[in-house]
Amino acid sequence: MNLPKTVTVIEVGPRDGFQMERNFIPTETKIGLINALIRTGIRRIEVTSFISPKAIPQMRDAEEVVTAVDRPPGVRLEALVPNPKGAENAARAGVDQMRIFLSASEAHNRSNVNRTIEGSLAGFEDVVRIAHEAKIALGADVAVAFGCPFEGNVPVEQVGRIVDRLLGLGIREITLGDTTGMATPPLVRERCEYLLGSHPELELGLHFHNTRGIGLVNVYEGLRMGITCFESSVAGLGGCPFAPGATGNVCTEDLVYLLHETGIETGIDLNALINVAKKVEEVIGRPLPGQVMKAGSRLDLHPCAVEQRR
Amino acid sequence: MNLPKTVTVIEVGPRDGFQMERNFIPTETKIGLINALIRTGIRRIEVTSFISPKAIPQMRDAEEVVTAVDRPPGVRLEALVPNPKGAENAARAGVDQMRIFLSASEAHNRSNVNRTIEGSLAGFEDVVRIAHEAKIALGADVAVAFGCPFEGNVPVEQVGRIVDRLLGLGIREITLGDTTGMATPPLVRERCEYLLGSHPELELGLHFHNTRGIGLVNVYEGLRMGITCFESSVAGLGGCPFAPGATGNVCTEDLVYLLHETGIETGIDLNALINVAKKVEEVIGRPLPGQVMKAGSRLDLHPCAVEQRR
Repeated sequence: MNLPKTVTVIEVGPRDGFQMERNFIPTETKIGLINALIRTGIRRIEVTSFISPKAIPQMRDAEEVVTAVDRPPGVRLEALVPNPKGAENAARAGVDQMRIFLSASEAHNRSNVNRTIEGSLAGFEDVVRIAHEAKIALGADVAVAFGCPFEGNVPVEQVGRIVDRLLGLGIREITLGDTTGMATPPLVRERCEYLLGSHPELELGLHFHNTRGIGLVNVYEGLRMGITCFESSVAGLGGCPFAPGATGNVCTEDLVYLLHETGIETGIDLNALINVAKKVEEVIGRPLPGQVMKAGSRLDLHPCAVEQRR
Repeated sequence: MNLPKTVTVIEVGPRDGFQMERNFIPTETKIGLINALIRTGIRRIEVTSFISPKAIPQMRDAEEVVTAVDRPPGVRLEALVPNPKGAENAARAGVDQMRIFLSASEAHNRSNVNRTIEGSLAGFEDVVRIAHEAKIALGADVAVAFGCPFEGNVPVEQVGRIVDRLLGLGIREITLGDTTGMATPPLVRERCEYLLGSHPELELGLHFHNTRGIGLVNVYEGLRMGITCFESSVAGLGGCPFAPGATGNVCTEDLVYLLHETGIETGIDLNALINVAKKVEEVIGRPLPGQVMKAGSRLDLHPCAVEQRR
């Protein structure tokens, strides 16, 4: 099959999932769930966003979360930073990695951060300096990298130009985000071939959404292209702002199930993760889209009805 | 990519989906939905089951459905027949294809039809004779072909022995069913290689469930093995009897979306199919698991919020 032997799963639910929730999730609850996720063997986890509390009140406890969660050796706490002020706060809180973000389309970047792509890139220079001075790793997320809900198709060359600029800023770890579920296997292949072919130093990650039901097919195609870093969200937390009822992020348990069943190691205990997903569903208070959390592992067997009748 | 250029999608919702519904769906409603499905370009459709009305009251209008639906040229109406009496009724109603079924594990076959596998195979001889005399095509479905919820793993050799016997009865069109969502890409590969390698005359179809979130990944692996016939259910109709809230059949619109986006023709109009899926959801009266029906096609674009604010 020629697939990678091990894959790094980056859990993004506590940031990408929680930030879509209107009701404030108590800080202690967030900390408890993050600690539980880390105990399953997850080693990289995006725990919060150092964004203005006015913009996203749910993330107002960013510093408290980062300073309070358990940090066993080898665990990397990551946080989104939208601007230099966020980077300073993230550095002070002591995150292990900052992540900056921009969109691959002008319309989405304007809608999301009210800037041009060029404006976003210029703003990153201060963040790079702050991260460098604090000796904190820095990654970048490129949103709508497989298509934009406003503009439609996004040329691979446009994604390539943004990756060039990010690499020029010294950022090697770059994740392509499929923000509204427009990725397809041929687009995954095209983008991976194009970017990895021209930038061998690039550490490329993929972040898919299951909005149109093929999130894990895109992961599978990414695996076949040699990608070893995928972002996902426990229980499938996080919706799609454009389609009520539609699914958002690929679900971490479902991803880990696929990886393990395909013979790929993650270091994550699937059954423990299923239990955390159920807790997350309790906290959120509505059914979440994860499938394995409902059906159980592949060999969770059932009593046979006929035998029971005997 | 080396994938097939065209694929046949067999719609099974009106049989496999409707039969799980407790409330009787009026015959006229069934006929209207089946006609609407056929108008989307679907050419093969499992419309009902000629089973005892006592066993499944929902299917008590089997004959009326088959005789009343539109039959444009090229459309094949298929029906499940559990026994010779069902086959006689199906022949009298004038179906284009009968489908017999058994399970790849003894426990599941006993639970499902209260017979040994050998008993099921012996019972098929009369059905074969009835279909042959009526000049009606005959196919077979092998349930739990990727794993049994009671017994666990099902050896590929066990599936191979059943396929041998079915081929010996003159049945070449055989579909492997993943009844409770236990298929994985390596199992798909193993089973396809084993069966196609030893039986070049076999016309192999695949029927996956999305119970553990990887139904379409298994389809994708099947495509890579050269399979060109997949069963699925509009809107993802049909649940999993063992896991409340879990998904059942792979969803037809999501499958067609994947196929089209991968450059594979189906002859089906995806937007028309999405509209039928929404009607099915209305009839069933609860949210169904299909994703594309909620999110729309890939290039169904949205107005940009910033532009709107100007």
